Amino acid sequence: MSLAHEGDRLETSAPGSAGDTTLEPGMVAELVSVVGAEWVRTEREAVDEFKDPYWIPGDDTFAASAVVQPGSVAQVQEVMRIANRWGVPVSPHSQGRNLGHGGASPSRRGAIQLGFQRLDRVIEINEDLAYAVVEPGVTWQDLHDAIAERGLDLMTPVPDLSWGSVIGNTMDSGHTYQRYGADYRLHAGFEVVLPDGDLLRTGQGALPDSASGHVYRRSLGPSLDELFVQSNLGIVVRMGVWLQRRPDAYAPLVLVVDDDADLEQAIDTIRELRLAGHLEGIVAMYSTLRAAHMVLDDPVPARPTPFTDEELQRIGSERGIGSWAVRAAVWGDRELVDLRLRRIQAAWDDIPSGRVHPVRVYARDEWDDFTRSAELITAGIPTMKAIESMPAHVAHLDVSPVVPLLGSAVRAVVEELRRQYAVAGLNFGAGIMVTGERSAVPIAGIRYDRTDPASVRAAVETGRRMVTALGEMGYLDARPHLALMDLAASFASFNDHAYRRFVERLKDAVDPNGVLAPGRHGIWPARDRAAEPDDR
Amino acid sequence: MSLAHEGDRLETSAPGSAGDTTLEPGMVAELVSVVGAEWVRTEREAVDEFKDPYWIPGDDTFAASAVVQPGSVAQVQEVMRIANRWGVPVSPHSQGRNLGHGGASPSRRGAIQLGFQRLDRVIEINEDLAYAVVEPGVTWQDLHDAIAERGLDLMTPVPDLSWGSVIGNTMDSGHTYQRYGADYRLHAGFEVVLPDGDLLRTGQGALPDSASGHVYRRSLGPSLDELFVQSNLGIVVRMGVWLQRRPDAYAPLVLVVDDDADLEQAIDTIRELRLAGHLEGIVAMYSTLRAAHMVLDDPVPARPTPFTDEELQRIGSERGIGSWAVRAAVWGDRELVDLRLRRIQAAWDDIPSGRVHPVRVYARDEWDDFTRSAELITAGIPTMKAIESMPAHVAHLDVSPVVPLLGSAVRAVVEELRRQYAVAGLNFGAGIMVTGERSAVPIAGIRYDRTDPASVRAAVETGRRMVTALGEMGYLDARPHLALMDLAASFASFNDHAYRRFVERLKDAVDPNGVLAPGRHGIWPARDRAAEPDDR
Repeated sequence: MSLAHEGDRLETSAPGSAGDTTLEPGMVAELVSVVGAEWVRTEREAVDEFKDPYWIPGDDTFAASAVVQPGSVAQVQEVMRIANRWGVPVSPHSQGRNLGHGGASPSRRGAIQLGFQRLDRVIEINEDLAYAVVEPGVTWQDLHDAIAERGLDLMTPVPDLSWGSVIGNTMDSGHTYQRYGADYRLHAGFEVVLPDGDLLRTGQGALPDSASGHVYRRSLGPSLDELFVQSNLGIVVRMGVWLQRRPDAYAPLVLVVDDDADLEQAIDTIRELRLAGHLEGIVAMYSTLRAAHMVLDDPVPARPTPFTDEELQRIGSERGIGSWAVRAAVWGDRELVDLRLRRIQAAWDDIPSGRVHPVRVYARDEWDDFTRSAELITAGIPTMKAIESMPAHVAHLDVSPVVPLLGSAVRAVVEELRRQYAVAGLNFGAGIMVTGERSAVPIAGIRYDRTDPASVRAAVETGRRMVTALGEMGYLDARPHLALMDLAASFASFNDHAYRRFVERLKDAVDPNGVLAPGRHGIWPARDRAAEPDDR
Repeated sequence: MSLAHEGDRLETSAPGSAGDTTLEPGMVAELVSVVGAEWVRTEREAVDEFKDPYWIPGDDTFAASAVVQPGSVAQVQEVMRIANRWGVPVSPHSQGRNLGHGGASPSRRGAIQLGFQRLDRVIEINEDLAYAVVEPGVTWQDLHDAIAERGLDLMTPVPDLSWGSVIGNTMDSGHTYQRYGADYRLHAGFEVVLPDGDLLRTGQGALPDSASGHVYRRSLGPSLDELFVQSNLGIVVRMGVWLQRRPDAYAPLVLVVDDDADLEQAIDTIRELRLAGHLEGIVAMYSTLRAAHMVLDDPVPARPTPFTDEELQRIGSERGIGSWAVRAAVWGDRELVDLRLRRIQAAWDDIPSGRVHPVRVYARDEWDDFTRSAELITAGIPTMKAIESMPAHVAHLDVSPVVPLLGSAVRAVVEELRRQYAVAGLNFGAGIMVTGERSAVPIAGIRYDRTDPASVRAAVETGRRMVTALGEMGYLDARPHLALMDLAASFASFNDHAYRRFVERLKDAVDPNGVLAPGRHGIWPARDRAAEPDDR
């Protein structure tokens, strides 16, 4: 079995060559008997409503055979048992908002899409210990609303968009921007439906009715939480989410470097501020065009040809976002916030073209009037601005290499991305997520017109070239698009792909029939590995 | 297969009933051909030098068959291949300092002890990104020395004793007291020898020569690091360790509550200080007798009968350590340290019997004169004080329930431990490790005379009763003693022991011959599960 770099799904999966997209009537009847007819869809049109809206119009490479929406964990278990009996793969999604990465579409054509929109309970919010417990249908907005309704003094962690699922985002290694976004410390304690329908609780939750199930990140014995993230070894149907206390003071920050030549120093400065604790959470650094969109909520209108360097510089200068603009925030009591602001200001002033946007510190009773996404997001208030401010036909495909938080390393990746964008005839654009004290994930969001099949194909091709070039430079993608998962995973080749060979052994042990999300993040079950790659 | 609560190893493993402690000469010859005769010991006396010095004198329940000390990772791989061919279990240890939990002894009698004392390279120290990469033979002292020799501006994380292995401590879920001790964020990126001798790198290290292997905690696909902690699924032979920058200012702290009635408020106060970020790292709260030892380096001499409450109160009062004394520290720039000290002082002053020992803030050039372990440890300077200050015959067996960081929950556990100590005729003693922002692990260190078999047996019996009582209260042990692993794990019984059943499936998949550390933390391979529990 070989998954060579050219194993790109776009080229190898001609329609009709992969899994059947029609279920046996007997299997449909069993599914209906478990979840009810209302929640089993098999008509093509109804099923396609759940497919990735960013994929090639009319292309059924990732077409599902059905959409099933269970109403309880017991129903999820029963669906998995049915899938095993019939040998039909199942691909779970929570809200299906994994846009830029393949949406809710299954990695294997013909799989049943298992949607968790109905499992939408906020099971617990523990104010003393500052955590919540949610089901996969709970969105960031739902969690925020639940905290607000109960009048709790807690801050909701949020990503860029409010409509996604808390669990779904976590399972796909998405980001949130508050304290627990960095180093992925948001989750603690899962309930998991295993591929065979069995039910597992991780960590301290393995003790029945444990009071420590969501406060401590370890098991007695091997810890399993992260084995179920970006994984096809189980389905997380319940998760603990760590929350911050709502601080007395909050200051949203925009830090700018006007001159691209200062990128290295800016990155190294952010690292030192992170290590010193003055910056917390995920700090996001955007190139000019991305900053117009993500920091100002005012995207620069598209045009047929890319902007020249001079034009980009003028845009950055006119809008005050420079070559790079950093979205960050400081939380704490007023004195602590002031101290941190002074440290950040001083460090940023050492950068030749560094500028800090005017800072306002908000007190507790001044949080309700934010309107800009850069203020809302770091305040933990979910928003849809990032999608509302873009024209509806604009889609994106994201490439996300994992890079050490060193100016020189980030520079090398940025320059490679710049070359790749130029080859594709696209504007350069990147959002560098500072994912901890030592790492950054520069996200190259390749923009395209989702209504134009040629534009989508070109974007996938550009993504393929970027993942390849970055892989050859030594950087693995953090969250590859469905169409590029095998390609991205192929670079994790240490010792004849020891990582993949090991995870495949786990996969075969816990999912011998290979029914749970085959191919997700490059892990295929035995029955698919036996087939020629082209037949997948 | 059933591992009932009574499956306590002390009672079920009569000498001779478990694994053979003599290896076949052919196997010994193969081991010698790989690692050299000098590094293979099979004579009983030489082997017993590596057994747990705290176990019952003369009892061979956990006796090993040999001690093998490989000199390279390739030799470790080859030893595992030999073990598979001969079907003989192998139990790895790093420095063998897991005292209070079974030392270096194997969980299965007759196993080969694989010692990593010779794998002692500090492979890398990256000052820019503040991490080190170590082999399992590297002790805390070694790491500290390597940083000092290179003149780097980094602080070493340390546990209570300097002689332990960095990797060994991590693998047994030990604690360190600096920023990355809490929530176990110390490690990132492993190299692992699998039970069959294969070699795996986790996280970004799966990409050959990745520069991101120790800066980011995730894989593309399921993350595996924590699957190899407290585990018998692989042997970690290389690990990334996150370090802090050495701060400009440092203040060791001792916070006291004189009245035991204030325990709840003290715990809740620590939680809020942790959530606010004013306290970082693992804060350790000691009862009177433990504080005399761990905070003052001046243990109270033992006597045949336990101290009365009045006597304990007088000791606490005379020595200034009250009913509970907290060892903590603040690191940062001078202004930040001062701010945090004011916040901590104010919060502690709200506790009726709360007192803060006089505080001194140390500047960068004042770190070299510390002599007390409470100052050394939080400054990141390894020490042997905790063992040097105790008489050589005093041993301990540790019980460590995982409890939410709530005053009421910690109180309930403390009272249960108090009852258990009283039943055993022992002094009450606990060190409550604040393992994060939401959890505490109160460690009941049961003290005994290791030269007296009856005293050891009584301690194991007391441990058995504590683990049972705490398990019935809903608290799982974090790090059970070798003799109590099956008992402790038996409480993780959600859904007919779904956790154990799942990990057993992984075990059988990656170690089909069951040769790597069978029984470790309650996970037995298929061939041992098939036998009667009594035969293990």
